[in-house]
Amino acid sequence: MEMWPANASIREVGPRDGLQNEQPVPAADKVRLINALSHTGVRRIEAVSFVHPKAIPQMADADEVWAAVDKVSDVVYSALVPNQRGLNRAMEAGFDQIEVVVSASDTHNRRNINRSTAESLDEIAALQAVKPAEVIIATSFGCPYEGDVDPLRVAQIVDRVVADGAPRVAFGDTTGMATPIRVRAVIGAVRERHPDLPVLLHFHNTRGTGLANILTAIELGITEFDASVGGLGGCPYAPGATGNVATEEVVHMLHDMGIDTGIDLDRLIEVAAMAQEIVGRELPSGVLRAGPRSRTVA
Amino acid sequence: MEMWPANASIREVGPRDGLQNEQPVPAADKVRLINALSHTGVRRIEAVSFVHPKAIPQMADADEVWAAVDKVSDVVYSALVPNQRGLNRAMEAGFDQIEVVVSASDTHNRRNINRSTAESLDEIAALQAVKPAEVIIATSFGCPYEGDVDPLRVAQIVDRVVADGAPRVAFGDTTGMATPIRVRAVIGAVRERHPDLPVLLHFHNTRGTGLANILTAIELGITEFDASVGGLGGCPYAPGATGNVATEEVVHMLHDMGIDTGIDLDRLIEVAAMAQEIVGRELPSGVLRAGPRSRTVA
Repeated sequence: MEMWPANASIREVGPRDGLQNEQPVPAADKVRLINALSHTGVRRIEAVSFVHPKAIPQMADADEVWAAVDKVSDVVYSALVPNQRGLNRAMEAGFDQIEVVVSASDTHNRRNINRSTAESLDEIAALQAVKPAEVIIATSFGCPYEGDVDPLRVAQIVDRVVADGAPRVAFGDTTGMATPIRVRAVIGAVRERHPDLPVLLHFHNTRGTGLANILTAIELGITEFDASVGGLGGCPYAPGATGNVATEEVVHMLHDMGIDTGIDLDRLIEVAAMAQEIVGRELPSGVLRAGPRSRTVA
Repeated sequence: MEMWPANASIREVGPRDGLQNEQPVPAADKVRLINALSHTGVRRIEAVSFVHPKAIPQMADADEVWAAVDKVSDVVYSALVPNQRGLNRAMEAGFDQIEVVVSASDTHNRRNINRSTAESLDEIAALQAVKPAEVIIATSFGCPYEGDVDPLRVAQIVDRVVADGAPRVAFGDTTGMATPIRVRAVIGAVRERHPDLPVLLHFHNTRGTGLANILTAIELGITEFDASVGGLGGCPYAPGATGNVATEEVVHMLHDMGIDTGIDLDRLIEVAAMAQEIVGRELPSGVLRAGPRSRTVA
């Protein structure tokens, strides 16, 4: 299809965003997972976050995990940091790619980190002066407390973080409230003001719309997506609900559509099975359960 | 969006296609489910199938169920029949809307009903002479035994059934092998030869692509879809795999996109909870678990 690109780039967020929303697992399992992902052909892995262990015990061993990972030269590993202290830890650990988060919704930002969105934006500006970082704008497509989020508000946050030095921006569908019309609205509002800004989309499949949203973004020319192997990661606001879109479901659909990701799908499915074994619960990935469409019954 | 229609029509298939692929449930529960669905605003319900009880014990009580249902005047109820005997039973029971099935893939047709596709097409022609019926072409987007199915083969089956009197055709993604490119290929091949034929699409969400496929079809101007309340119905070829797309996930996405279905989403979610209670297992519907995006946390 002429309207589809030849390539898309996946950032694997299972080790960080996924495991951060699961019951804690041993450091050795995290290392094993990251090492296995490094050999699937994926080029970007969000490996750890440097957050306070009281706030997020799942990431208390970030330094230990990262030190033990076999770094693969053609994979870019990134770390999420909440503040200056986290940034220092990430830079000491040798991370070059840094991500920071702010919620478009004030209520979500306050509940999440006890600050207003404006206060977080000031802190992020200070961080950008030290080290340019990707800004992930959470609740870009809706807030579980406030409901709809005005795309103009999201675009204004982009204005601010770009002015403060953010080289790239990601839009997070934190609790799976995006639908194709919301994706078009947010991307449209942002593009009108920042037509050349590199953007990445981060969808959750909480209400089944994950791949429909990715398809919509692909049709808008977006080619960078977060995804989580096996669909690792729950949703704190809806027990049992699906979290991040499963990497192998994204790759499976894109490859069938002729859009290459550089990822070996069979190998990725093996890693999804490992992720399922590590967390000890059935993960929501359909491609993990059923296999790719090319796997025929004997 | 100018490219999206104002309305879409859902046929609820949970009572038949859904329950046929679950462990058997009492007739009274089937009646309760159909009655509740009749008051959601949905206008079409596939209620039962008249098949041999040895082949499909889940539908052995079709006559009993249908006799006990409170028929609502603005709902069109349909029945699936496999052969002349089933058609006779359906007509005696008072059904006016009849569906028959044939698989585009010869191997799937043989494994399913021990006949070649050509033999089934001859039988369907004989049925159409008695009573015009919608033909559901299973495995239109891929076969779990043969793999890819040539869209031209699907189009040629359409040629045949239309010539034999089928007033409308449905394309079944029997084991969830459709992706957006497959949807475009099948619809393109059929439309080239039958631009005005009423068509309906029936997707399974086995590999997560259900709503992406519906979005693609919507963009192609298709407005009729099968869906199953709660996502009732498994997949015989992949234990634990998701079956039909969940009606409330479809309705939730379409309504948010401004495409009306006439269905009351809140009421539908209540029926999905009832369906879950009836089958006694957690159904795969994200909208059932998490609620609609409009349901904010207090």
